[in-house]
Order: sequence, then structure tokens, then C-alpha cells
Amino acid sequence: MIDSQAFPVEPWSITERGFSRDDMGKMETVFALSNGHVGLRGNLDEGDPHDLPGTYLSGFFEFMPLPYAEGGYGYPDVGQSIVNVTNGKIIRLLVDDEPFDLRYGRLVHHERVLDMRAGTLERRVEWISPAGKRIRLKTTRMVSFEQRSIAAFMYEVEAVDKPVRLVIQSNLVANEPIPASSEDPRAAAAMAAPLVSDFYINYDLHATLAHHTDRSNLRIVVGMDHSFEGPEDRVLTRSESEPDLARVTFSTELDAGESFRIHKLVAYGWSRTRSMPALRDQVDAALAAAKRTGWDELLIEQREFLYERWDVSDIEIDGDPVLQQAVRFAIFQAMQASTRAERRAVPAKGLTGSGYDGHTFWDMDTFLLPQLTYLLPRAARDALLWRHSTLEIARRRAKELHLDGAAFAWRTIRGEECSGYWPAGTAAFHISADVADAVRRYINATNDENFAMNQGLELLVETARLFASLGHFDDQWIFRLDGVTGPDEYHALVDNNVYTNLMAARNLSSAAALARKYPERALAFGVTADEIALWERAAKHVAIPFDDELGVTMQSDGFTKYREWDFEGTPASEYPLLLHFPYYLLYSSQVIKQADLTMALYLCGEHFTPEQKRKDFEFYESITVRDSSLSASTQGIVAAEVGYLDLAYEYFRETALVDLYDFNGNTDDGLHLAAMSATWLVAVAGFGGMRDHDAETLAFSPCLPDALTRLRFRLIYKGRRIRITVEPTQATYELLSGQEIVVRHDGEPITLTREEKVMRPWHRKTGLGEIRHPYGRSPRDVARSRVSVPTEQLGD
Amino acid sequence: MIDSQAFPVEPWSITERGFSRDDMGKMETVFALSNGHVGLRGNLDEGDPHDLPGTYLSGFFEFMPLPYAEGGYGYPDVGQSIVNVTNGKIIRLLVDDEPFDLRYGRLVHHERVLDMRAGTLERRVEWISPAGKRIRLKTTRMVSFEQRSIAAFMYEVEAVDKPVRLVIQSNLVANEPIPASSEDPRAAAAMAAPLVSDFYINYDLHATLAHHTDRSNLRIVVGMDHSFEGPEDRVLTRSESEPDLARVTFSTELDAGESFRIHKLVAYGWSRTRSMPALRDQVDAALAAAKRTGWDELLIEQREFLYERWDVSDIEIDGDPVLQQAVRFAIFQAMQASTRAERRAVPAKGLTGSGYDGHTFWDMDTFLLPQLTYLLPRAARDALLWRHSTLEIARRRAKELHLDGAAFAWRTIRGEECSGYWPAGTAAFHISADVADAVRRYINATNDENFAMNQGLELLVETARLFASLGHFDDQWIFRLDGVTGPDEYHALVDNNVYTNLMAARNLSSAAALARKYPERALAFGVTADEIALWERAAKHVAIPFDDELGVTMQSDGFTKYREWDFEGTPASEYPLLLHFPYYLLYSSQVIKQADLTMALYLCGEHFTPEQKRKDFEFYESITVRDSSLSASTQGIVAAEVGYLDLAYEYFRETALVDLYDFNGNTDDGLHLAAMSATWLVAVAGFGGMRDHDAETLAFSPCLPDALTRLRFRLIYKGRRIRITVEPTQATYELLSGQEIVVRHDGEPITLTREEKVMRPWHRKTGLGEIRHPYGRSPRDVARSRVSVPTEQLGD
Repeated sequence: MIDSQAFPVEPWSITERGFSRDDMGKMETVFALSNGHVGLRGNLDEGDPHDLPGTYLSGFFEFMPLPYAEGGYGYPDVGQSIVNVTNGKIIRLLVDDEPFDLRYGRLVHHERVLDMRAGTLERRVEWISPAGKRIRLKTTRMVSFEQRSIAAFMYEVEAVDKPVRLVIQSNLVANEPIPASSEDPRAAAAMAAPLVSDFYINYDLHATLAHHTDRSNLRIVVGMDHSFEGPEDRVLTRSESEPDLARVTFSTELDAGESFRIHKLVAYGWSRTRSMPALRDQVDAALAAAKRTGWDELLIEQREFLYERWDVSDIEIDGDPVLQQAVRFAIFQAMQASTRAERRAVPAKGLTGSGYDGHTFWDMDTFLLPQLTYLLPRAARDALLWRHSTLEIARRRAKELHLDGAAFAWRTIRGEECSGYWPAGTAAFHISADVADAVRRYINATNDENFAMNQGLELLVETARLFASLGHFDDQWIFRLDGVTGPDEYHALVDNNVYTNLMAARNLSSAAALARKYPERALAFGVTADEIALWERAAKHVAIPFDDELGVTMQSDGFTKYREWDFEGTPASEYPLLLHFPYYLLYSSQVIKQADLTMALYLCGEHFTPEQKRKDFEFYESITVRDSSLSASTQGIVAAEVGYLDLAYEYFRETALVDLYDFNGNTDDGLHLAAMSATWLVAVAGFGGMRDHDAETLAFSPCLPDALTRLRFRLIYKGRRIRITVEPTQATYELLSGQEIVVRHDGEPITLTREEKVMRPWHRKTGLGEIRHPYGRSPRDVARSRVSVPTEQLGD
Repeated sequence: MIDSQAFPVEPWSITERGFSRDDMGKMETVFALSNGHVGLRGNLDEGDPHDLPGTYLSGFFEFMPLPYAEGGYGYPDVGQSIVNVTNGKIIRLLVDDEPFDLRYGRLVHHERVLDMRAGTLERRVEWISPAGKRIRLKTTRMVSFEQRSIAAFMYEVEAVDKPVRLVIQSNLVANEPIPASSEDPRAAAAMAAPLVSDFYINYDLHATLAHHTDRSNLRIVVGMDHSFEGPEDRVLTRSESEPDLARVTFSTELDAGESFRIHKLVAYGWSRTRSMPALRDQVDAALAAAKRTGWDELLIEQREFLYERWDVSDIEIDGDPVLQQAVRFAIFQAMQASTRAERRAVPAKGLTGSGYDGHTFWDMDTFLLPQLTYLLPRAARDALLWRHSTLEIARRRAKELHLDGAAFAWRTIRGEECSGYWPAGTAAFHISADVADAVRRYINATNDENFAMNQGLELLVETARLFASLGHFDDQWIFRLDGVTGPDEYHALVDNNVYTNLMAARNLSSAAALARKYPERALAFGVTADEIALWERAAKHVAIPFDDELGVTMQSDGFTKYREWDFEGTPASEYPLLLHFPYYLLYSSQVIKQADLTMALYLCGEHFTPEQKRKDFEFYESITVRDSSLSASTQGIVAAEVGYLDLAYEYFRETALVDLYDFNGNTDDGLHLAAMSATWLVAVAGFGGMRDHDAETLAFSPCLPDALTRLRFRLIYKGRRIRITVEPTQATYELLSGQEIVVRHDGEPITLTREEKVMRPWHRKTGLGEIRHPYGRSPRDVARSRVSVPTEQLGD
């Protein structure tokens, strides 16, 4: 748990003061830099100490065996795991004859600042070596948004009060030892030294390491180049290289008050198809380009790039500066994860850690893509094109499962299913409907007709075919999906999970509608009139189990008959429940890990009356324990819709602060990117009340909790830029660019023009009941989460 | 598939003529010898060629890791696997300078005979070496029922027409290479050389090897001793030993017509608690005793022992000599597996192979123990005492699962759960009810009050507590068991599996009844009046889902709403389905691997009207594919009860012939002991119509298919020996020993006395419909299963 006080409340930055070894892993995650293409964990420049060294490249993985005590048909036997590639971050420092290491000597001052407008991580250190030499260190690092293969570093040492001898070693290190992530010795072996050297070379201040992976057969070339500013005549340099190490060494002497500064550029190139010589040229060219740009200009480029992004993406919040900071951090992380991902998968933890083996889940399609769709449609398109690029794999998977169409992988890097527990992998068929819904949303929001007619239609058709074959009509002509797993991982292999059924229905009807819109294209995909008719009939008659006695929708058949959970008898130490209770007990009880029926209330809200929605929400609130970080956002969105505004606000904070406050205790594995991304959704779909079920327009239904005095967000819709400001009694709609457009405010069509703002009052819901949460599982009490963090050796 | 012609139809033996390498593994299983304590696969004396060398000791196992691609709470991480221990069967022969090996030279005659009355495996060979030396070989081997640690071998070579030089090597071999049974390299490594040498010694014609296992820490000592008959002055002997090999070598020369004969005794001793010196003494003592008995007397002892067993156990069948032979083979295998198991677990494959890792399942309690209860109650008691000895482990497992009472392992050797797929392991909670029902049956059948008051009551109480905590009452006060797996492994994690619910109800009511009968003992186990009342209420109100529209009992909630399986579209090559279809597809379809609701119709038949039973049977027949060898027997029993006598007869043959005809193609892994054991049940509970639901009496309802003219079986009940003969129109009841007793014939109480037989007519059921089976899944057509088997190098 990071003390919230460790982060001063600042609108545009995250600052760490001091240094705590206990929090090192979490800070490596929080201070990770990425552009979606290259990601660097926030490891210290000097490499040691570290929690988890991490340098990740989008889509760079190795295969590893998936073991089973008892195997089964269709179980994937090969997994994919993100590789910690060649580390270009390391710059080691020797002061006289002692290594600069925070664990030794005396740390007078230590501060790191993530600047979300500059796109940099800055570090300021004052340190006295064990021998009494005082130095000041300033470093700045960035991963360039403009030059996507480039990471750049500034490293400056100052001798404070005595002359010092300095040696600075700037490294590329491959196959660095990392903690084993698997108990399977085969997997551990596969990941222990995943990079096989192809060549290494050094000249002047430049060095290159080239490797490939043994089984996934990916090639990687990493180059570095340097320049320096300092007492020229007193600087000796030397470079060397070997298979897993390249090093450029600077040695010099500084008088008191003198400084020495290095600029380091690192370029990454990797490919499965491009040859080693081509990759090497590509990397050297990237270095040459970045060198030509120069450090100062790289900083400016970065800031300008982000200025434009923030201009589109920012959410302004008045009334809670902690939340304002957290929301910007969340938006920044979504930018970092996706901006330059460019037709590769966005992992559930972005490129900030190796958690979940670097896999991509529905997190991307359901929690990240809405934000990208309305803020950076090009990136949303890229992500969907990545899904489309895995379509052939998904078709093969469907065939293996004796199904039609395409079954997308529950978790994957390259496209193949990598889930080793089928009840929570293969059976989570909703992933394919989630992909389809992201396609539908993107098409409606952008009018990208080329995509719609081609990849979009094909994705909708193939996923619709999956569900048409997965479900069946019973003797009452009800369309059923039996034996599947919905979002709530505390239940599996259930019949007629409402979320899955409704999302499948939307998939089927969206495919039918698009096929009718582009009949010739549909014909090219082999779609027949009978097929469309079947999709429409199935969508119309999908099963939605309901408990007549309780008057609530059942999450799945029979759900409300299950055993009640003894929440009062479950202490905080037994959460998350899955670590303390067997699946069978969870699966057969009325206890919910994460929003599931509540997801349906949000994403498929058109199927529920407002009264039913409120009743269902209240019921499921009382049994949802939020052992998943994916849950709070959806609960917040529906809480806002049905009128529990203060509760929605608490969920807003919980999802926004999940990593800054390390609510789940595992931020060190990487960011909870879906929770971060869904922070934006709580603002826009929760307090903005935005719904995009309708192909023709966006609907809003704004509201605001008492704690906030103003909430302002922007979005891009059908080419228009719209800004909406919610205040305690009214909402203001502004069209910032583009032609006039009609949206809905609380159901009323309103026309937005460039000429004038539209203001409308909003009204609080009345007649609300009292929300009961499972004992101890109310939204995170931020105050209680504050624990003091020991810092080491501070003060002078 | 073994050609049925390979087994001449004989009433008391199984004969193999010729030699087929393709069938070698199957024959090793069929010719396995065991007394339940020591088991030898039917490997050739000379060791090579072999399919799977196998020597097994009851309860002798090694731990091995259970790997998971994704682990979970409560998953067992250590498995247990039966160990192929020191092989004492090997006797190699060198003829002049060429090894006797069926693959070389010319095999003139080869015959092996399993004699089920003698309890021996005999072998007759005539072979011409590549160099043209003709020999005859006679061997006989036995595993003694009287001297349980002893295996004995007679080995005789005759020089037929030329003088030959012979070298005979009689071995003990430890850690012989066997095919890896696991893909996990850790498990494969653990099982590759599981025995660690402690000492080895040899003197005269005697040698001993002592080993232990590394992790399960079991000690094993194997000793051998020899005597020989031959041209004394021309025989040289020599013995030697090393860690994994002991060898006694005989070399001699025979003139044409001369013979040389060896008798070899092998004794096995193993223990976790007894020391090495104690074990060594025990083994040498066993050898001394057996030597004193002598070969001829060992043969006589064995025959006398079996005579007594057959006198109690035999089933006589007139009208189908193939079936007669198969039924005796089945009874013989149940004897071999259990007679001297003595408070150790009886594995699903007996001691005939390493299939299922040598684990014990419900096969023992449900399919084997009824036979033992009525034929060899001491062995039934021993098996239940083994279950009782694992009670503490089962209590710990229940606690780990957050349940009360005791949860017995789905698969285990020593007691700990070893299932690596929890939906078909942990969730198969019926295992505990199956154990309880075996306890109930044993108590009722024997009036063993000491057992009843102590271990029996404790077992019933602890299993009742399990179900009381596993289930819950819903708001209608229906007692539900949600998320469990019944016998049918093509469905898992279902709500209210009828078999599980009814067996749990019986468990609860049996425990209540016995606790009321022995109130002081119950008090000692902490049973309260409230607890008993709860058990009785739960038993009374257990959920039994029913489909009102179809008028059939649902195997579990919602079962009849599942997708229908396309049986016509499923070719024979896609069976067993689990190897060709994903679990999710099976789980959500109306396709059944093995009798499940039909098990309930048999074992809990008192809950169904005759009409309902017939209707349910017909329904489930149409969707049961029998991908499990456990199924045919139950289907046969219920077929007989509801009146489909010819069908019952077909199932009788299928279950009886499962291994002789290798219906499942995996007899080489070991016998299908449950199917073997249940052969007896089809005779007694099927055509005898025996039911033992009632604590006070046995009910019979005899019948006979047209194909048979007489069926006679015996049983022991409350100390009486009863013989029942079923003929085409009547049944005859005889009390062979013991005081008069009342049983029921078709519901009518009849009193059996020593003085006179009771004869009663039986009546065919009328009004039967037509049974439909899934396409291609009718009872095995024996004729179609006959395939010709190539034999090698036969003829002269």
C-alpha cells in the first residue's frame, strides 16, 4: 500500500519523495514509461536495487509449455509469455571506487516526478558515498510518442563539495535474471534466458545487440548511441560488446561544483518477418533520426504531442484534487498503453509489467476501446485491426471447438488461446461478443465505412456465426447459451448468463444490420438471407432468466437459488476469496467477484426498465465483493444511472486510485489498465450518462455527486468534437468542431451547433432505497488505505 | 482388439494360443496374477519383448508433482503414483549362445493358460533357436493366496532333439525402464527410477535387494531363493547382486530328451513404519516358510483356497458358454484384486497395470464392495477399514474446502486427493455418499455390530456432516446441492444432480438411523439431536428436478433444456467423445457418458414408481453413449428391472467381456475392475433383481433373458448362505447354511429354511416401448468386435 501522502496532490504530475524499498515494485509500475510500442518499467537508472526489471515490446513474446495434471481435448498446450527484452535503461555510476547504490552511503534527497504533460520521468538525487563524497544526480527519461522506437535518457552528475572521480557505464543488458513467474520448470527454463544472441557490435559511443527467440522466432535488435557534455579533455570513453552485454564507459574527474552530462538514445527494432540486416539498419536509422532531432527537441516534440492529446482527452474535475490527479493519471496510462500500439494487442497491464504474462483479455475491447473510440479513433481502429489479424486463428479455434465462425482467445499475445483453465477461458465466450461490440461502437462513432464494409463486417459476421452455433433454441423457441462463463469469475459453466446472452444477441443483431446495410459485401462473406433471419430470431428470443418471487433478473439460470454467502463470517484477510475458498464453493453460492448482471445493466441497458434496473442493481450490489479491479467502474456507472450518486462517486475514486493507492496489493505486477481506462467511462458514461446503444446518436443523462462542483469531458463523435460540462444542477453541451449534430439529453433530442452552447437541467432520482454491501466490501475507504511508508536514510 | 477366437471357450480357464506382439499388452493384463497384496503382470518370463513390465504392491507408491497451467485454491499439488517395483518374474534363457526371444528363431508352439481354479498361469513353448536348437519350455507361475507375500515360479527346459548348452538367469531387477506416463518432466523424472537402493546381498541361490522411495519414504525388500532339478553334476550356479540387480545363474548341458527345472520363490515385504532389518527378516522368513511348503504343496494350497472361494462365489450360466467363461473371469479378477488387500485400497485396475496411476475411485465402494459384501464380507470390511483409516485425511480435506465432516478423495492411493481436474474430482462429492452406502450395505448384510458401532457409525456421521454442510435449504425448504458433478463425466458442476442428491439423502438418513440406534456411541462422536433432525429433514426434502412437459426426471436442474446431440453426425471414430469434443460442448448437451440418473434408478429405486423408472430409463438410454466401462452394468440392471430382458442380456455380455474382448482398446493399461465386478451385479441385481435398500431384508425380483436357460448365484446374508436359481419361468431359493430367514420375492415375504427349497414363478413385464440408442452406441455387437489377430512365426 502506498501512502497517499507519498504522492503530493498535483494536477499534472505524480511525485515520489524519498525512497522505500517496500514500494519499489509498485513505483516501477507507476513510473513506467511507454508509447504502446516500447515500454520501460520505472527501474532505477543504476539497475539495482530492483523489484522486477522490465523492458517490453508490443507483441514480443516467447512460447512456453502449458502443463496439466489432467489434460483434455482442446486444451492449449503452448502458452505465450511477454519477454523482458534487452534492458537499455541501465546507467551505472562509480563515485571514486564506490558504486552509486541507494542501499549504501547516505541518501540526502531522492525525488522522482512523472510529468504527464511533458511525458517524462525526472529524478533528482543527492547522495553521499560511504567514503563521504557528495554528488547530485539529475536524470530524465522518456519513451518518445513521435519516434516510436526511441527511448531517450539524460544523465547528469554534479560533484557538490569535493572533487570526485566518476565512471559511468551505460549498458544494454540481455537475459538479465528475473524472478521466475512459473512453477513449471519447463516454463521457467523457457523464460530464464529467452534471448539467443545473433551478433553484437560496438564502435565509438555506439553499440548494438541482436538476438532472437528460440521458439516464437522473433528477432530483436537494440542499438544505443551517446553524446556527452563535460570537461572534454578529461573524459575517457570506451565501448565494448559481447553476446548479452554492450557497454559504453565514460570516466572523468569533476571538481567541486562541476557537472558531467550524458545523453543516451536507445532504439528497438523487432520483427518476425524482417531480416536481421534490415532490422539493424532500421534501428541505426532510428538512432540517426533521433540524434538529429536532439535531446531538447525530443522533449519539445513530446510535450507538443501530449498537448494535442490532452486537448482532446482531458477530464476536468472541480471539488476533489486527489481525484483530478488520479483521473489524469488514468487517462495518461491509457495513452501510454495504446497510442502507438499500431495493430498489436494492448495487454491488460499495458507495457508496465509482466503480470498475466503480458496477455490481452476483454479488458482491451470492453474497457479501453470505448475511450479510444471517442478520443483517439485511429488507435481504436488499430486495436480492432489486430483482432481482425487474428481472425484466422479464431476461426481455427472455433473449428477445433466444433463451432462455426470465430472464437477469439480469452487471453493471448499473438492470437492463440493461452488460457490454462478452460472454465474461465474457453467457456468465457463473451469475449467474442465483446470484440463485436467494440466493432459496432467504432463503426457507429466514426462512420469509417471502409472498415465497416471490410474488416468490421467480417468480424461481426464471424462472431455472430459463433453464437449462432454455440446457442440453440429450446422447445419453446427460446434461444439458450448453456454451460458458459460470464464476466463474474466466481461462477462458471452456467446456463444463460444474462450478460453473455444479451451481448450475443447484440452481436447477432449488429451483424444482421450491417449485413443488410452492405448486402454485396455480406454475400462475399457467404452470408445468406436465412442466416440473417436466424441471427435476428435468436437475438430476439434470447433467454433472460428472471426470479418472479424476488422480482430480480437472475445472473444465470437458478442463480438466486444458490446458497447465501456468510459475509459477516468472512474476514478481510480472506479476500480475494479465490485465494481462500475452493471454486466449487464460490460457484455454487450467491457471491459475485465482479459486475456481471450489472455489466448487462450498463452495456445492454435497453433491455431493462428503469425500475428493474434499480432493483437489480440493489440486489447485486449486496453480493458483489469486487475481487476484480474491473468491477468498480461498472458499478459506478450503473449507480449513477439509477441515482446513487454518492456511491457512484466512491466507485469513481476506487477505480481511479486503484494503482496510485495500490488497492489490490499487486500494482508491482503492472498497472490495472482496464480499471484505469474505465475511470474515463465512470466520468463519461456514469456522470455524463453517455449511452451508445443507438447507431444514430449518442444519449446523455448527466448528473453529479455532491462532492464535485464541476465535471468536464470531451469526445469525438462522427468527426465532431463535443465538450460537456456537468454542474450541480445543469449540463452544458458544446460543439467544438464539425457540423451540427443531434444528441439526446435525458431522452430529448438536442441539436448542437458551433454557434451556441446548449444548457439543460438534470434531475436527481428519487425513491431510492438503501444500498447494502457485503460486510467490509463497501467502496474502498481511502482514508483507511493510508498507511505510512518507511523511507530509508533520508534527511541531512 | 483380441480375437475372441484367441480364447477357446472353456468353463474355467483362459487360453492364448500363438503369440501376437500387437496383443502383448492386453495379454499382460489378462494374464496378470495377484492376490490383492502382490500383483504381477503377465509379462513373458524372459522379460523381452514386453509392453509394460509391471510388478505392483498394494499401497506402494511415490509422490509426484501435479502441475497446473493455472492453479487454484485447494488444488492438490502432489499426486501419488503406483510404482513398478522390483521385478522378480524375469528368468532369462540362453540356448547355446543365443537368447531365447520370441522375436528370433522359430516359434513352433506357444500357449498360455490362466487356470481360474488352480490360480496359476501356465506356459508351453516349443522354439527352435536361430542356430537350429529345438527346446521345449514349461513354466508355471502363481501369486499365493495363502502366503500373501510369495510369488512362485516353475521353469523347465527340455532339449528336444539335440544336446544344448543352457544358461538360465533368474533375476530381481529394480528401476527397469518403463514408458513415461506423464508429459510433465518432473513427474516423469520422479517415476523413471523411483527406487533408491539401501542394500543388496547374495549367497548360494538366494539374493535380496532393498530399496526405498525418495519422497513417500516407503521401504521395500525383495528376496528370492531357488532350487533345481537336473543333471546335478553338470550344473554350475553362481549368484551376484548390485544395487538394482540380483541374479542367480544356472549353466548346464542337456542331452536330447533331458530336462532342467528350476523353482523360484520371490517374497515381497514393504512398509512405511517397519525398519529395514525387520523387513529383511520378514522377507527371509516368508521365503523359508514357502520353501518348507514346497512347490507341489503351494499348488495344492492354492487350489484348495480357490475351491472354497468358488464354492461361495460361482455363478453358473446355462445357454451361453462364452458368457459363462467371461463371468468366471470377472469373478476371478475381483478375487485377485481384493482377497488379500487387507486394509489397503483396491485400485480401479487392481494390481494389473499402472492405468489411472494405480488410484482407487468409487469403483471400489460402488462396484466391487457389493460383491465382496455378499461373498467375502471380511474383504469388504477390510476395504471399509481402509477408508476409515483415511478419515483424518478426509476431515482435513473437508476443512480445506470449508466443509464439515469428511470429504473422501475422488482418486487416491493413500487417502489424499490426487485429482488434477477439480470439476471431475473435488466436485464429484458423491464419492463420500458412495462410501457411506457401502458402509450401510455392509452393516445390514453382516450384522457386524462392532464395526457398526465404531468405524461404521463414524464414517456415516462424518459423511452426513459433509452433505449437511455442502447442501442448503432454499426459501421453499428444498434441500439443494449446487455445483456438483455426478457420475456422468460429460456433465460437471451441475445443480441438483439426482444421483448425488438421493445418495446424499440416503447417507443422511442412514447416519440418522444408526445414530438413533447407538445413541451413546453417537454422542461420543458429538452427534446432537438437532443434528440428527437436520439430517432427516434434509434427506426428506432433497431436490429431485423433474421435467413436467416430458414427464422425465432431469439428471440435474435444466438438463432436458440442453442442446440435443447430433448422434447421426458423430461417426464411431469420434468416440470416446471426450477425446474429440471440448468439455464445454459435452457439458451443455444432452449426451451422457455413463449411467447417472440410471444409477439413481438402480441404487435409489425406492424413490421412483415403476412407471417413472421405465420412462426415465427409456429417455436416458436414448442419450447414453457408454464412453465409460462403468455404465453397461447399471444399464443392464435397470433394463432387467423395467423388463427389457434381451437388452439386459446384451449389457451383461458387454460388461463381462470388456477386457477379454478389449472393447475399450485400453485393456493393456490394466483391467476394468469395476466393470468386472459389476458383472456379478448384473447377474444378482439384474436377473436376480436383488435390492438391499431395506435394512431388514433382501428383496429379489428374478427374471431371465431368452438366451439363457438357467442362472444360478450364491450369496451370504446375515451369516446365511443362500443359493438362487433362475429358470425361464421360475426361481428357486435355497438356504445352504444358517438359520431360517425371510427374504422377498417380487415383494412377497418368503421364509427360507434348510429343509426345503422355495420355488416361485416370475413374470415378464408387459407394455414395453421400443428402446432407441444413440446412433452406433447399442450394446457392443460381439460379432463385429471379432477381428483377426496376426500371429507371428507359428507352425512347424
